[in-house]
Amino acid sequence: MITVTFLGFGNVNRHLCSALHEIDQVSIKQIYNRSDIQLPSELKDIPFTRQLSLLEPADVYIIGIPDDAIASFSEALPVRDQLVVHTSGGVPMDSLSEKNRKGVFYPLQTFSKHRTVDFNSVPICIEASKDRDRKLLQQLASPLTKRVVSISSEERAKLHLAAVFVNNFVNHMYAVGADITSRSGLSFELLKPLIAETARKIEDLAPSEAQTGPAKRKDLNTIEKHVHLLQDSNYKEIYTLLTESIQKTHGKKL
Amino acid sequence: MITVTFLGFGNVNRHLCSALHEIDQVSIKQIYNRSDIQLPSELKDIPFTRQLSLLEPADVYIIGIPDDAIASFSEALPVRDQLVVHTSGGVPMDSLSEKNRKGVFYPLQTFSKHRTVDFNSVPICIEASKDRDRKLLQQLASPLTKRVVSISSEERAKLHLAAVFVNNFVNHMYAVGADITSRSGLSFELLKPLIAETARKIEDLAPSEAQTGPAKRKDLNTIEKHVHLLQDSNYKEIYTLLTESIQKTHGKKL
Repeated sequence: MITVTFLGFGNVNRHLCSALHEIDQVSIKQIYNRSDIQLPSELKDIPFTRQLSLLEPADVYIIGIPDDAIASFSEALPVRDQLVVHTSGGVPMDSLSEKNRKGVFYPLQTFSKHRTVDFNSVPICIEASKDRDRKLLQQLASPLTKRVVSISSEERAKLHLAAVFVNNFVNHMYAVGADITSRSGLSFELLKPLIAETARKIEDLAPSEAQTGPAKRKDLNTIEKHVHLLQDSNYKEIYTLLTESIQKTHGKKL
Repeated sequence: MITVTFLGFGNVNRHLCSALHEIDQVSIKQIYNRSDIQLPSELKDIPFTRQLSLLEPADVYIIGIPDDAIASFSEALPVRDQLVVHTSGGVPMDSLSEKNRKGVFYPLQTFSKHRTVDFNSVPICIEASKDRDRKLLQQLASPLTKRVVSISSEERAKLHLAAVFVNNFVNHMYAVGADITSRSGLSFELLKPLIAETARKIEDLAPSEAQTGPAKRKDLNTIEKHVHLLQDSNYKEIYTLLTESIQKTHGKKL
């Protein structure tokens, strides 16, 4: 049995806690959060506390709080020589306090409060300063997902950066699409099948092979028309820069 | 029975032809292409020609050729007073020759040679200069999809522009993600569940509600780290511009 205590209860820890609660080999010891929270009904039986001084022993403490608070929070944590991990893509393991054994338990997925996540295919990226701790994290992650990967803080930083492009920036492209359609009195619904297929396509094809459109085929006529349509828009610069970037990427092949 | 002739046999016409061939109320009269092509086995029985002079009468002629060739091709077409449509998002209906009745039959989807497309949810955007022609196009599209929309050339241009953002530019973000991971010796596979969930999320949530990440939460520390990681990269400018754009979009709410 692995005992786990959650420190902070934002989206990531909330989803991790619900998922780990289902696993027979795992027991959730406590949930700590700075402010009062509404625990989902299936987690109602787990002891909740707002006082760090009331933390009990556990095999793993999982910190899930904003990135810039992780270092000081781990320093203030009143436990010693325990395994304390964070769940952040962007924070190096060494930001954690030396008072405890360090580790990272980073599920590479986007979490929203009201969507359940099927962890089965979610990569969980683990790191630990001690080999036996890495093994424990591996053991904790394995019942959740078939994709447990051991990566360094440097690799994780790159992965997190890549995730910003394929998640945050992609979502912003969706937002621009929604804005353009709504300003023209068109429904964003019209774009949804295209969005779904664009994502599905790269399951089989490398993104460079899946690229289409005026930038890729150097269709200057259409590009000019689009830039003209965006004349007074904040999106003109984005259009131009991304068009150039696609052309650079695919330039050699033409 | 509606008779249809395909002029050009690129990705769009190939997929449209295969889909319309399945419809009882539609008969594919001829396929014309400038060069010889390999017809898929299920279309082997359809008469193929490389000579425009051999075109026979049909209710609808569907031009599927590169955008910049549509105007001159429609001018050179040796038919008169027929319904001639193109399938392009970016070309106004009026680019078609006056010699025939004009129309547009634009399926809003990304087509690849080796992927079959389920037309059922694909919006088909139609336009015609004459009301009865619009009705005929409606009749032609209806058995393929539940989403037939009648839109003007101006609206279509905006829709096509929005499609560039949510398809071409999104795919380029995937390509950047693939590039960053591969340069770090990481597998692009790790990002695929995130990509799939990012696309799925906006089925229920508006993109502006689904936005997350360092730009949205104005996490300057992480943004600075990312810009540093991209120091010598072509992607630094993209990162900075899209981060600013997200902050502009969400600025008012903070």
